[in-house]
Amino acid sequence: MSVKVAVAGASGYAGGELLRLLSSHPEVEIGALTAGGNAGTALGVHHPHLVPLAGRILVETTAENLAGHDVVFLALPHGQSAGIAEQLGEDVTVIDCGADFRLTEAEVWVEFYGGEHAGSWPYGLPELPGQRDKLRGSNRVAVPGCYPTVSTLALLPAVQHGLVDPTQLVVVAVSGTSGAGKAPKTHLLGAEVMGSASAYGVGGVHRHTPEIEQNLTPYAEQPVSVSFTPVLVPMARGILATCSAPIADGTDLAALRQAYEDAYRNEPFIHLLPEGQWPQTQATLGANTVQLQVALDQRTGRAVIVAAMDNLTKGTAGGAVQCMNLAIGLDEALALPLVGVAP
Amino acid sequence: MSVKVAVAGASGYAGGELLRLLSSHPEVEIGALTAGGNAGTALGVHHPHLVPLAGRILVETTAENLAGHDVVFLALPHGQSAGIAEQLGEDVTVIDCGADFRLTEAEVWVEFYGGEHAGSWPYGLPELPGQRDKLRGSNRVAVPGCYPTVSTLALLPAVQHGLVDPTQLVVVAVSGTSGAGKAPKTHLLGAEVMGSASAYGVGGVHRHTPEIEQNLTPYAEQPVSVSFTPVLVPMARGILATCSAPIADGTDLAALRQAYEDAYRNEPFIHLLPEGQWPQTQATLGANTVQLQVALDQRTGRAVIVAAMDNLTKGTAGGAVQCMNLAIGLDEALALPLVGVAP
Amino acid sequence: MSVKVAVAGASGYAGGELLRLLSSHPEVEIGALTAGGNAGTALGVHHPHLVPLAGRILVETTAENLAGHDVVFLALPHGQSAGIAEQLGEDVTVIDCGADFRLTEAEVWVEFYGGEHAGSWPYGLPELPGQRDKLRGSNRVAVPGCYPTVSTLALLPAVQHGLVDPTQLVVVAVSGTSGAGKAPKTHLLGAEVMGSASAYGVGGVHRHTPEIEQNLTPYAEQPVSVSFTPVLVPMARGILATCSAPIADGTDLAALRQAYEDAYRNEPFIHLLPEGQWPQTQATLGANTVQLQVALDQRTGRAVIVAAMDNLTKGTAGGAVQCMNLAIGLDEALALPLVGVAP
Amino acid sequence: MSVKVAVAGASGYAGGELLRLLSSHPEVEIGALTAGGNAGTALGVHHPHLVPLAGRILVETTAENLAGHDVVFLALPHGQSAGIAEQLGEDVTVIDCGADFRLTEAEVWVEFYGGEHAGSWPYGLPELPGQRDKLRGSNRVAVPGCYPTVSTLALLPAVQHGLVDPTQLVVVAVSGTSGAGKAPKTHLLGAEVMGSASAYGVGGVHRHTPEIEQNLTPYAEQPVSVSFTPVLVPMARGILATCSAPIADGTDLAALRQAYEDAYRNEPFIHLLPEGQWPQTQATLGANTVQLQVALDQRTGRAVIVAAMDNLTKGTAGGAVQCMNLAIGLDEALALPLVGVAP
Repeated sequence: MSVKVAVAGASGYAGGELLRLLSSHPEVEIGALTAGGNAGTALGVHHPHLVPLAGRILVETTAENLAGHDVVFLALPHGQSAGIAEQLGEDVTVIDCGADFRLTEAEVWVEFYGGEHAGSWPYGLPELPGQRDKLRGSNRVAVPGCYPTVSTLALLPAVQHGLVDPTQLVVVAVSGTSGAGKAPKTHLLGAEVMGSASAYGVGGVHRHTPEIEQNLTPYAEQPVSVSFTPVLVPMARGILATCSAPIADGTDLAALRQAYEDAYRNEPFIHLLPEGQWPQTQATLGANTVQLQVALDQRTGRAVIVAAMDNLTKGTAGGAVQCMNLAIGLDEALALPLVGVAP
Repeated sequence: MSVKVAVAGASGYAGGELLRLLSSHPEVEIGALTAGGNAGTALGVHHPHLVPLAGRILVETTAENLAGHDVVFLALPHGQSAGIAEQLGEDVTVIDCGADFRLTEAEVWVEFYGGEHAGSWPYGLPELPGQRDKLRGSNRVAVPGCYPTVSTLALLPAVQHGLVDPTQLVVVAVSGTSGAGKAPKTHLLGAEVMGSASAYGVGGVHRHTPEIEQNLTPYAEQPVSVSFTPVLVPMARGILATCSAPIADGTDLAALRQAYEDAYRNEPFIHLLPEGQWPQTQATLGANTVQLQVALDQRTGRAVIVAAMDNLTKGTAGGAVQCMNLAIGLDEALALPLVGVAP
Repeated sequence: MSVKVAVAGASGYAGGELLRLLSSHPEVEIGALTAGGNAGTALGVHHPHLVPLAGRILVETTAENLAGHDVVFLALPHGQSAGIAEQLGEDVTVIDCGADFRLTEAEVWVEFYGGEHAGSWPYGLPELPGQRDKLRGSNRVAVPGCYPTVSTLALLPAVQHGLVDPTQLVVVAVSGTSGAGKAPKTHLLGAEVMGSASAYGVGGVHRHTPEIEQNLTPYAEQPVSVSFTPVLVPMARGILATCSAPIADGTDLAALRQAYEDAYRNEPFIHLLPEGQWPQTQATLGANTVQLQVALDQRTGRAVIVAAMDNLTKGTAGGAVQCMNLAIGLDEALALPLVGVAP
Repeated sequence: MSVKVAVAGASGYAGGELLRLLSSHPEVEIGALTAGGNAGTALGVHHPHLVPLAGRILVETTAENLAGHDVVFLALPHGQSAGIAEQLGEDVTVIDCGADFRLTEAEVWVEFYGGEHAGSWPYGLPELPGQRDKLRGSNRVAVPGCYPTVSTLALLPAVQHGLVDPTQLVVVAVSGTSGAGKAPKTHLLGAEVMGSASAYGVGGVHRHTPEIEQNLTPYAEQPVSVSFTPVLVPMARGILATCSAPIADGTDLAALRQAYEDAYRNEPFIHLLPEGQWPQTQATLGANTVQLQVALDQRTGRAVIVAAMDNLTKGTAGGAVQCMNLAIGLDEALALPLVGVAP
């Protein structure tokens, strides 16, 4: 089997990570690589790490250039996917790494993103209960945001088993700066971010907030409410999410831990660490994994779950390839590293 | 006036930062510099940035070597201050940067630190209501821990004015690795911490937890409870604390902001940023400042306060010098930078 | 005495560092702060570390706004200083941090910068033999580039005493990314520079190359030739220059070391480290110092001199303030830190 | 085919990188993992990124534990390999990542390492002319040091073709701190290395110096002499080597570039970048590649070659696996990534 794949937005960080993974995928043939302003230049100028593809020339992101592929990955700025997607036929599997099709409620879309709601596609988080089956054979997939992926996976078992109060979730997630993209902005300059930590989107205004709530609400007895604060720290990749919630009456550490063991025992990419060992982002660098640990703070009556993930791999491109594998009937784990690059 | 000052533990990070500040203090003459294993070596080997003191030879940390000074700073590992302090006379002002005399309750000390409780000294956080007066003329000061300093200052106005539920405080604080000290440990190696974020002391077990609660409880209507999680991130200095709590009925953003403006309007080192601007640790590097911003998350009913501080300056050595200034009757702000080093 | 000072280009890195130093200068009153595109915004938006000046509003960089000051610092992109400078009267002391007036030879200017040569001003490196006297009372000063400052000081004693072959100098200098300025560019993004080292301007094309040669040639028996390669590394500030040259017949380590001791014994900011101790940039962070060490590689017959410096302090703004102090008759060392911020 | 492989020194950085690569090697079965002080603990405690091997228990580094394997990798501190190696039979392929068997001259060994010379093994740099054949079928391989690998490959074509003066080579190589190993030392702490650059082993005393000369001398018309200075910079991995030498009469850029194109056209892991593009270490992170660029500085008559490499991959463990593949008759490139992890 050879699957012909195009990547739209190949010169950005998500596009580069998709190509890193796809270049070692045994069933994939890499076709068109498209870009906006970088069209006409060689991929190697933007991604010198992609050695086997360095000489490839980027072409314009148009439906014509994306035609004739079995799978098209969209790694475009938010708001640009819908226009392209509707020009691609139903016989093409489209995996969108942008936000356009993630939210199911139009009014929530309008509140957080503005503009018209493009609709929603099957949500690309196979680890949600029952979701894997919905992704198999789907010709459209909306890849989750990076923060929602790690936050949802960190909170789901506790919420699903009623072990915590789902209306008082608190997530503070530190992130490397690649999550903010490759467009040059002063506050993302190396001199600004090295040696500095800073919060942004504070107070519930970050666009990933409603996505986390949308993911967890179906598994809770009441609508989920999450206070989410992202923090930029001086690293290129990685998210460490510290998630907490008041425990429900009777929750003890054994029950909490058991819920996570049960939930993820058979998940290839989600790993509850041995007791006493806490996640670090370095261990997931370049891997499609999430590493988790749980604690119960008896003094405050709060469960605390910490999760580490690479925002570009499992948080974006790895999750996207995982969805492609499911969508087109391949082994879900193909070409997805379990082993990170450390130190 | 010339105040003769000794520093015990001069080769460590807290000791180095004390000497950085003291070396530009117009009223201070720097006397004995002591160390443990590093006694006999030149200060410049350990702190090449302390140019004017580089040739000074470290002597053993003994009561004899510390005698004959007006002020003695103790920057020793936890548990070592009490033994030295009791050998120093009442005419000596002793400023302890360690934890030995911070906690007032013996049973809490035993629970979090183990061993015998040495007692408690006036707590060196002048910004606590009424505390400045207690520090003036005191010959013993317990300098707060770095996390408690920033967390207390971030939460105090909201707690004091009853704007939040003080039993459900959540603090997630990212920190540079100098806070973990200069003793060589594998998990603090550059190769381990660069490119990685990791939580530690999760679940209420970090020793700074009861100190935060002790600081806030007198200003709350009920005993304060804080879920505290520290996170190591790849920077040498700096803490960014994201603090949140459910708002009390009727709290709105204007009231919240007003409480912080009122609390810190006259504080020389605590700065509420203009609306829309969020703290970054880089802006406080090497300065004795805390920068704050507040938000109210209407969706979740949570107040979120973010605070940035340099763990070694205001969080340790700057706070200590500020206390010395008060204790011996100098201008509180002497030798304490308002301006950070950025980028 | 109160000297009224304006800073043109206040929102950039050089401008910010000038204001950090000037804000603690006992003889200076800070006047107009000007900018290009950032005119109309508050300084604190760009430099939140400059607490006492945070509320100042930036005005347009025009001769009108710069009029009425005793001293004007120009921290503008290369090529913009000459136009402004000619509109400022002879009674104003102008300190240019840009390149416009550094090179004395018009043809060299044209080769490396292009466009018309604006002329040359007294060169602001007081540590050059005899240069201090030329700067005293001068109303125009061209502040050296950062690489030329550290490279010149590292090589001068060896060249001046004929201890090395001045036609075969090799300098490889690693630098933090603030040296590349604050204009947003993709290759300077945090995600690009963290975890990466890269050379640029290789092969003698970096504009600082002729400036180094110009500085050293007057002290050599033949025209100096330097192979200069700058390397960007993941830090915000700091330059570490590794400089080497074949030794002249008969040069031994004692003679080499003696030349440096003699040259810098009375220089307040240039420090030869004790034998066995090697420079690190962290020790000079935020300080106006250069730290040096020398070695003689007997096997290859090469002298190796390593020098550390903060590119923004002694390399730009600190050097500029040092020149201002000289130019207007103040103590040369006023407001210039000897002590760095470490770790 | 299934090759049973043991790794001695599995808890260190070289050991971890070996296991990262070997864990995806299609022909390898991973056997004993040994350690010194860490024996008895789980591998995942030391290398949480090695997910599939995390539960493996480290055993003591003894000949007994290493017996019964087809291949044994030694990733031990210098001086420990020889004792173990002599207890392993001739039927075992031993790949030594340490220095013990790299140098051919006993007196050079004694000068740079001290103690008795253990002898020399076939040198594991397949890209040296003719070396690949010597490694095929060899049951002993001495893996090169990281600096010698990148410096040799950067200089070889120019030296071999007589394009430069081989007696005046200068190498300044910046390196991430993982190259200094995992033993905890104060100067390698994160707080010490973040934000700082520092030279060490200056003046020809670094142990990799004679190894570079040994590699190049057979291809030069006279004994090679290299002035080598390593510089630690704030990154976990990666070496960027800036190499230069005076050009021989008549050398021009075309000839220089041609020599590199010819030398590496058929080398799978060594890549001369397109003109105008300069190497960055990030592009080689986790890959077994070296990226090169050449320049000719007409003004100074010096060739400058810049090379980027991951010190742990091609510089240690990747080079070692490449040698294993050759030694036991597998495809040389098996399990060795061409694609780096960036950003």
